[in-house]
Amino acid sequence: MAKTDKINYSCPSGFPEFLPGEKRLESYLMDTIRQVFERYGFTPIETPAVERLEVLQAKGNQGDNIVYGLSPILPPNRQAEKEKAGDTGSEERALKFDQTVPLAAYIARHLNDLNFPFARYQMDVVFRGERAKDGRFRQFRQCDIDVVGRGKLSLLYDAQVPAIIAEIFEAINIGDFLIRINNRKVLTGFFASVGVAAENIVSCIRIVDTAEKVGEVKVKKALKEIGLSEYQVEKVGDFTNIKGSVDDVLDKLKSMTETLDNSEVLTQGISELETVISGVINLGVSDKRFCIDLSIARGLDYYTGTVYETTLIGHEALGSICSGGRYEELVGTFIGEKMPGVGISIGLTRLMSRLLKAGILESFAPTPATVMVVNMQEDLMATYLDVSQKLRRSGMNVITSFDSRGVGKQLQQADKQKIPFCIIIGSEEAAANMCSFKDLRTGEQMKVPIAGLAGVLKQRLVQ
Amino acid sequence: MAKTDKINYSCPSGFPEFLPGEKRLESYLMDTIRQVFERYGFTPIETPAVERLEVLQAKGNQGDNIVYGLSPILPPNRQAEKEKAGDTGSEERALKFDQTVPLAAYIARHLNDLNFPFARYQMDVVFRGERAKDGRFRQFRQCDIDVVGRGKLSLLYDAQVPAIIAEIFEAINIGDFLIRINNRKVLTGFFASVGVAAENIVSCIRIVDTAEKVGEVKVKKALKEIGLSEYQVEKVGDFTNIKGSVDDVLDKLKSMTETLDNSEVLTQGISELETVISGVINLGVSDKRFCIDLSIARGLDYYTGTVYETTLIGHEALGSICSGGRYEELVGTFIGEKMPGVGISIGLTRLMSRLLKAGILESFAPTPATVMVVNMQEDLMATYLDVSQKLRRSGMNVITSFDSRGVGKQLQQADKQKIPFCIIIGSEEAAANMCSFKDLRTGEQMKVPIAGLAGVLKQRLVQ
Repeated sequence: MAKTDKINYSCPSGFPEFLPGEKRLESYLMDTIRQVFERYGFTPIETPAVERLEVLQAKGNQGDNIVYGLSPILPPNRQAEKEKAGDTGSEERALKFDQTVPLAAYIARHLNDLNFPFARYQMDVVFRGERAKDGRFRQFRQCDIDVVGRGKLSLLYDAQVPAIIAEIFEAINIGDFLIRINNRKVLTGFFASVGVAAENIVSCIRIVDTAEKVGEVKVKKALKEIGLSEYQVEKVGDFTNIKGSVDDVLDKLKSMTETLDNSEVLTQGISELETVISGVINLGVSDKRFCIDLSIARGLDYYTGTVYETTLIGHEALGSICSGGRYEELVGTFIGEKMPGVGISIGLTRLMSRLLKAGILESFAPTPATVMVVNMQEDLMATYLDVSQKLRRSGMNVITSFDSRGVGKQLQQADKQKIPFCIIIGSEEAAANMCSFKDLRTGEQMKVPIAGLAGVLKQRLVQ
Repeated sequence: MAKTDKINYSCPSGFPEFLPGEKRLESYLMDTIRQVFERYGFTPIETPAVERLEVLQAKGNQGDNIVYGLSPILPPNRQAEKEKAGDTGSEERALKFDQTVPLAAYIARHLNDLNFPFARYQMDVVFRGERAKDGRFRQFRQCDIDVVGRGKLSLLYDAQVPAIIAEIFEAINIGDFLIRINNRKVLTGFFASVGVAAENIVSCIRIVDTAEKVGEVKVKKALKEIGLSEYQVEKVGDFTNIKGSVDDVLDKLKSMTETLDNSEVLTQGISELETVISGVINLGVSDKRFCIDLSIARGLDYYTGTVYETTLIGHEALGSICSGGRYEELVGTFIGEKMPGVGISIGLTRLMSRLLKAGILESFAPTPATVMVVNMQEDLMATYLDVSQKLRRSGMNVITSFDSRGVGKQLQQADKQKIPFCIIIGSEEAAANMCSFKDLRTGEQMKVPIAGLAGVLKQRLVQ
């Protein structure tokens, strides 16, 4: 067979793919995340990979992202057709770059068929024309939840978010983590109340948001550079140094408002934060899993209230592994309705690839099969097929070997794929309705009746 | 809030999306299919949505399909950058239009990291620039399995395929179906042995393949038109009229070879078919689920041996709901190695949308939640949150209502979403650690201790 020379069959740069053991790990993570989302009543949706370009670009939606436009390419044998028998490409379309703009479009498209508050999850891949050399992916999976109200939305939905985050990361068992909670109104309110001009507040928040990375000295310098007074910089220092238990932080914040003018927004933010924290406590989230962190702001300008970041303790360099917040004007834009929402996103592809590299997660075995029925004698194939089907019907994943090489080679094949059990049946065993099984993890070999095989293997699997 | 006028936020034509209840049905179907695939040891992979254009077009891979090329579009605020800080679009890429070409590329990319025979499944979406007005989708999900060998591949892999198809369609419970099995060598061998010129055989197969649609008279006419003699047309009629049990068909085929010259390929095809059928029987597939159908050929030229089609009985107009076959020169092309494979594909999006339309499948409830904890008194919210968490920890999907309207409105909301149970707790119940639950399906209302609630609800769910 001739090789098709010169074809570059590698993945396009920035478009990664996984080996089977990695894909199995991803499936497991997705199943776990999905299960937690559903526990809280979030329902799945999936929007097309492709949206109209005007949707992706409406109201500055595209942000800084490069998106991928689509252009139909006819096959060589149909060039003469001028696309008559297919997509003419007359609609400008592009691949989605996040799940939020499509959520807004989805809600507009199905407004009367949805129940509000609409709590949905979505685990699709999205596409961004990132610089590939930064190790960023151009296609990656995001696991998002959002709950969206019409007109208003209880703050208790904000309180559920940390409970969901905690449950997910406890379930996937990647070590200790800390969910850091803040409220944008606390930040903007504070800056307003120390007299920072409205147009400077966003810059101040951005600077404060970098504190953990650059340190306090640089933050103060940067704040001075954008025009804050000595007094204001001092106050910012006091503010971001408020630490302690959630009760301590709330108390210190409240006492701070007493000495400040113009503190309505700050007071509102503190009140919201207090409601959210109280809900988180009532939901039984362990207090070692969450804190109030007044320095976090989330860069994204659309957050208006609660914001979240999640840090994996001991692996702070990974950055936030799950973030989000509350927004007012994000998903109602297409229909001109106020639709407050709160949501989070787990960047699964990036998270998994980094956790694998850091050795925090390990690939799964390359096959879901836990049993291989060995082909010892071709003339017993009917028995091998029958035993395989019996095991499958009892819920096991089974490979029947059709390999004509010796038993040793087949056991090697099983071992290479990390299949724990091999079933070996010769004429004598077959005649007695018996079989031998070998546990490749321990090297043990045992003879058992075929009728009891599934029970024995399943018991060993859970040990 | 101002409406963004003039934005057409509908889905681009041909790119469909589902309501939550439909998406939940799709998830269920995917989980069911995936479970059966894994029972037989198939392992998941996912390839990027995007491949290099040269991969999609190599060796005529693109066929008649219009593919979607990608072109990076900078956001309005970055037009000056000339794409320097992102994807420059210098690589020609397009969206995949099937899972087979990407499988070939995947195997080439990871040859030394895979175990052969490589049995993989893949359930991604693919993209084709079809004519949208034909009711065809431009984005749709395909659930594929293929097992690929290096150099050779046992025919017993072909025998597993009908067992897998039968298990899937029994599990999703859409009525009786028939898996029709044939072998391309039987067809080509037969035509060669009655003296049809090699260059005419593919046309003959195509004509025979239409028999079910157009009837025997038109088939005979068409065969004459491409130059077959009276005798040959007669023989073709005898051949395609071979019906009966699998044993009958195999016997009639074998006796036919005795009267024909040049029957080596035919004999090989019959022998392959016999091996496959014998495997299917040994795998315990019920004989009402499969047959030999000498008229099926699968239009796709790359099949070289076993071919499969699956008909939903009573709904023949749906066409084949699951098809595939064996091929020799499909996945080894990039590395110039002979890699025979056998596989099938379920066009899930199309199948589901047609089964929904035909009333064979029904949408799921719009939420996975089976319990709503009603907000009767705001001051008992801590109790409501606690009860909700207890139910979640016992494995139930729960919505806590934060609705400040009356209980009646909340029950209506639950009913609209087909949530079976509502939990209602007032001050008295809370003090006694009791709760009332209402079964919205029957209207029954009962008082039970909170500690026993999960058990009672779960029992009712399985009734």
